Amino acid sequence: MKIALIQMPVVADKKANLEQAVSRIRDAACQHIDMAVLPEMFCSPYENSQFWHFSEPRGGQVQQAMSALAKELGIYIVAGSLPEAEGEKLYNTSFVYDRTGAEIACHRKAHLFDIDVVGGQRFQESETLSAGDKATVFDTEFGKLGLCICFDLRFQELAMTMGQAGAQAIICPAAFNMTTGPAHWEVMFRGRAVDNQLYTIGVAPARDETASYVSYGNSIAVDPWGTVMCRGGGEAETLVATLEFEKCSQIRQQLPILKARQTKLYKILN
Amino acid sequence: MKIALIQMPVVADKKANLEQAVSRIRDAACQHIDMAVLPEMFCSPYENSQFWHFSEPRGGQVQQAMSALAKELGIYIVAGSLPEAEGEKLYNTSFVYDRTGAEIACHRKAHLFDIDVVGGQRFQESETLSAGDKATVFDTEFGKLGLCICFDLRFQELAMTMGQAGAQAIICPAAFNMTTGPAHWEVMFRGRAVDNQLYTIGVAPARDETASYVSYGNSIAVDPWGTVMCRGGGEAETLVATLEFEKCSQIRQQLPILKARQTKLYKILN
Repeated sequence: MKIALIQMPVVADKKANLEQAVSRIRDAACQHIDMAVLPEMFCSPYENSQFWHFSEPRGGQVQQAMSALAKELGIYIVAGSLPEAEGEKLYNTSFVYDRTGAEIACHRKAHLFDIDVVGGQRFQESETLSAGDKATVFDTEFGKLGLCICFDLRFQELAMTMGQAGAQAIICPAAFNMTTGPAHWEVMFRGRAVDNQLYTIGVAPARDETASYVSYGNSIAVDPWGTVMCRGGGEAETLVATLEFEKCSQIRQQLPILKARQTKLYKILN
Repeated sequence: MKIALIQMPVVADKKANLEQAVSRIRDAACQHIDMAVLPEMFCSPYENSQFWHFSEPRGGQVQQAMSALAKELGIYIVAGSLPEAEGEKLYNTSFVYDRTGAEIACHRKAHLFDIDVVGGQRFQESETLSAGDKATVFDTEFGKLGLCICFDLRFQELAMTMGQAGAQAIICPAAFNMTTGPAHWEVMFRGRAVDNQLYTIGVAPARDETASYVSYGNSIAVDPWGTVMCRGGGEAETLVATLEFEKCSQIRQQLPILKARQTKLYKILN
């Protein structure tokens, strides 16, 4: 499966962001990709004060455009995420379209990003957003893929859940920042890959030092052995990686940690 | 808590290994350490064919020497691990002594190292060893510490179990090899630290390129933010790290991932 990681710039203009996304996916499609992945909040500045203004309901304009593009190009699109309005609630939601443009999955960010690092990043998503309440795994002709958003990836049990549900890759639109990015971005994507013996794909907005929330960028693809296949910098760019899912089963056989679990030893609190 | 990571050479001579361990711990004690940690199988070559020959029963000679040394120096000793014989069974066991020489914990390796990487490392501990059946956390005046051995660390649920039981550090005598070491050693110790917001300490034998199993070395201490505090190379050396356990609670407050778990989403199979 050939996958494009669209590390695009995000500005305070929904229409411009959508055009940017469409244009970059079109360009990537020339490389015969099977799937394009956009960053978290690819149409909206990452600011609590902006989420409502940039939101849309289920089936909104951005979603329609992504569905139409998936159909036109005959590829899967994981449409990063956008602020999804439902009544009085707002979710950080990722929609997935198949080659016919059908919506085949959506994931609402289930772990809200509430963080307050002394001398570093502060952000409280829960001031505006509501949390999703399920793990998300969807089918493709290549096999099952897991989907989560940014802070969700910090929760090892969610990654385990997706892996055990059959995911051979975890796709994660994300936007780490200049505090947590250098500290945790790579170890998180590599660690989840090694522990669950699957691919991990992280796609972030390009870095904009003038934004109130500065994305770390560094979009990344990691194979099931934990090797970084490709990794971006801060600039806007498109990375392309080829996932060979037979590697998951090969590694699971050679290093059989998923079978060797001694569950009677584990006492995990709820 | 000041802790010494004794990355010592291991040879095919039990007496020489014990003398080496004692001498290096004595030297480290000049730096006013609170605890010394030895590597996995510090008295025995890491070979299935050698484990019985180098084994001893509960209370054996090596254990007595370690207990006496802990008392003499007034420090904790995590005596790496040794092949512990019990009837017809052999375990890979780590004994812990407090400042009075009392054995306060022992951990039998619970996940046996059975691995067969194409073009890389093959080893099947289960050909000779039996597995322990519990997670191990013990008390000190600094707080609780978790203890596991090498391959055990690959199991995220065991680390979670120790963390939830109150461990503020996971001590892990280990011996990764030249296949898994470069690929996974650092990401494993950093990942467990970040996910569970605690210190991780890995202590390995020095590298001996002539051994049938070549230890990667690279003894390591990682803080609860995932920062590598110190890391050895392949050579014999002693590293000293200072653990400040208030950092665990500070980081747990600033980045509250342990509280933010959404357990209703997780479906972990047994």
